[in-house]
Amino acid sequence: MRTMPQISNKGKLMPASPIRKLTPFAERAKQQGKKVYHLNIGQPDIETPKGVLDAIKHIDFKVWAYTQSEGTLSYRKKLVEYYNRANYNVSVDDILVTSGASEAIVIAMQSCFDSGDEVIIPEPFYANYNAFAWMSSVTVKPVLSVIENGFALPPIKEFEKLISDKTKAIFICNPNNPTGYLYSYEELVELKNLCLKYDLYLFADEAYREFCYDGNQFLSPMHLEGLDEHVIVFDSISKRYSACGARLGCFITKNKKVIETALKFAQARLSPGMVAQIAGEAAVDTPQSYFDKVNKEYTERRNMLVAALNKMEGVYCPNPGGAFYVVAKFPVDDAENFCQWMLEEFSHDNQTVMMAPAAGFYSSPGAGKDQIRLAYVLNKEDLANAMICLEKALKEYPGRTLIGESFEAKGKN
Amino acid sequence: MRTMPQISNKGKLMPASPIRKLTPFAERAKQQGKKVYHLNIGQPDIETPKGVLDAIKHIDFKVWAYTQSEGTLSYRKKLVEYYNRANYNVSVDDILVTSGASEAIVIAMQSCFDSGDEVIIPEPFYANYNAFAWMSSVTVKPVLSVIENGFALPPIKEFEKLISDKTKAIFICNPNNPTGYLYSYEELVELKNLCLKYDLYLFADEAYREFCYDGNQFLSPMHLEGLDEHVIVFDSISKRYSACGARLGCFITKNKKVIETALKFAQARLSPGMVAQIAGEAAVDTPQSYFDKVNKEYTERRNMLVAALNKMEGVYCPNPGGAFYVVAKFPVDDAENFCQWMLEEFSHDNQTVMMAPAAGFYSSPGAGKDQIRLAYVLNKEDLANAMICLEKALKEYPGRTLIGESFEAKGKN
Repeated sequence: MRTMPQISNKGKLMPASPIRKLTPFAERAKQQGKKVYHLNIGQPDIETPKGVLDAIKHIDFKVWAYTQSEGTLSYRKKLVEYYNRANYNVSVDDILVTSGASEAIVIAMQSCFDSGDEVIIPEPFYANYNAFAWMSSVTVKPVLSVIENGFALPPIKEFEKLISDKTKAIFICNPNNPTGYLYSYEELVELKNLCLKYDLYLFADEAYREFCYDGNQFLSPMHLEGLDEHVIVFDSISKRYSACGARLGCFITKNKKVIETALKFAQARLSPGMVAQIAGEAAVDTPQSYFDKVNKEYTERRNMLVAALNKMEGVYCPNPGGAFYVVAKFPVDDAENFCQWMLEEFSHDNQTVMMAPAAGFYSSPGAGKDQIRLAYVLNKEDLANAMICLEKALKEYPGRTLIGESFEAKGKN
Repeated sequence: MRTMPQISNKGKLMPASPIRKLTPFAERAKQQGKKVYHLNIGQPDIETPKGVLDAIKHIDFKVWAYTQSEGTLSYRKKLVEYYNRANYNVSVDDILVTSGASEAIVIAMQSCFDSGDEVIIPEPFYANYNAFAWMSSVTVKPVLSVIENGFALPPIKEFEKLISDKTKAIFICNPNNPTGYLYSYEELVELKNLCLKYDLYLFADEAYREFCYDGNQFLSPMHLEGLDEHVIVFDSISKRYSACGARLGCFITKNKKVIETALKFAQARLSPGMVAQIAGEAAVDTPQSYFDKVNKEYTERRNMLVAALNKMEGVYCPNPGGAFYVVAKFPVDDAENFCQWMLEEFSHDNQTVMMAPAAGFYSSPGAGKDQIRLAYVLNKEDLANAMICLEKALKEYPGRTLIGESFEAKGKN
């Protein structure tokens, strides 16, 4: 007999965010007066471009009204200008403005997948993809990418092993969150051939498209010929202009049936935010000098972080080509315990570090247990202090797997 | 054999918005130079309070950052102030800030319903509830409310006939969109007893809570004792402060398990908009004089609209107690044809009216075929002109069901 209404199984089993899981421990550490360096979350400290903030300050409407469900025509025109500068060759009809890339992904899953359908995603992957798939009753089939080659695209035959009648799409994030890996032209072509061979959608989350280092150029599946019916791109202004709080993303595809279908889901929630779209319009005029400065800053941070991590005994960190994350391997029994211990038990000069255990970014049980994602979203001084803390912590942690012996991580050389 | 990836059945069968369905005909009418009075959509012409717009103009942050997934503490504190002024007796932990009431409803459906579960909704109801239920693979069981008694709550025995093991909730919108009906204390108590008897959630969409006329006081299921585990309220600042473009709503419940579960879904999409929350904070300080003025304006419009409609031969329109909609019955063969004909074929002094056929607000096939929803969101002069057009149109429409004879709509007296 029931005595009160019950929550759903869907709700009970909904995966909690691995990024925010340790938040209560961080809160307690702060209450104890510890300074906590947040390397756990992709919230950059970089200032939003002045032109974007000015556009907000200069709004001149009297009625804060709904916009079109697909986004205002004027914002979509600016987006066309932005993407066509990068040779996407899109029109306003190929774009749907969304509340962050998150909403774009949910709409794509609803438009393209039925309950029980499968999507193949190289792991580790952005943990919320699991949540979005769960919400749509879709099954994620992970294909393992490995730290030894810097999390490059797994061999295509590994994807093919997973393909069944239920497989509807391959889903990549490029540059990758959490690994920072930037896919090469050759890898994108391999994915193209796979999608054409099996009639699969190719979903591409490009939220970090502006963050490519060492002179590497960003390439999108939108640049590949013959894939117009297959590619759906998700994007967001969150990282590009340090405007995470705008909740402004978009959904891009040249597949007319898909965008028509997606529009029905967009209409159900009426409209994206109006002020965000006004700011987003201004954002497209952000001068190249802003990006040059930001990329220089991130490159320096990455170099510093990667060098500091690799100097620590038993730690291995690849040097990724994009985004602002690294996934590193640590000489610890369990990275989640270690991260929690750093917040609960450890401090150095009354400081500690919060990081995201990488296991939450894997879908295969047990994978990535000794890996951690670090976001280099703090200034270099804070980052240097965080690295000092981390090095000390690794020496003190009771669950370390190195005891006074030299250790060579797999693939370190 | 497939040649390109297919859209999902979920996407194919997703219901299109009945409010926006006739938009292409309206666009064409405008291209032909006709003036179109928009009574089809709940986008008020009322100005947003100056304090809300000023809060946007005065933002002083440098980084447009994510907020907490549940909304900022400062905004939730202001919401507590707002709702506790109305005796909801809630705390910050009972509130989750969402992107419009739409997102709050989707999160509630995911948190409380599994695939195949059922929710009972008095019809006609806000059409997008169908879309949200469809997205969650939930079945809507409609219970008919009738124009003859102004769309009052249907008899409880009609609800009971529909209750099965799969029934998880009753869902009301109060004051009602599309009918404008304002539920009485006695009706809410009947719903309370029903929900307690069968352990059902009571979902209440209160987006129009500030719009009650003729001295009627708004009552919420939140005011009823013993229902804390059952009630989930969805709200939005869209209509209250004429801020539809803010996309700012909330989810309120005292059921701890529900809000914990809902938070997981909220975390997956990271955060609601930051500027909207800053504006929302300011909105809570909107002076009562704003609401008094707005309610006076809407009361006058409603009185004018209802009188004008009831004066037209064969038309019947109840006089609703809230929101800014009416559903009226027209002497036409098919209200959808009539609405389309008004945009395509009709004009008076080069003007016409766009309205929402009520059939889209019913879930039972064939119901409401001669009914239309009108939103009184235009100033009185435009509203008067729209009524002149409508009266002329009814006389000219080839599918009218009255030919030179006196007609008394059921329940008109």
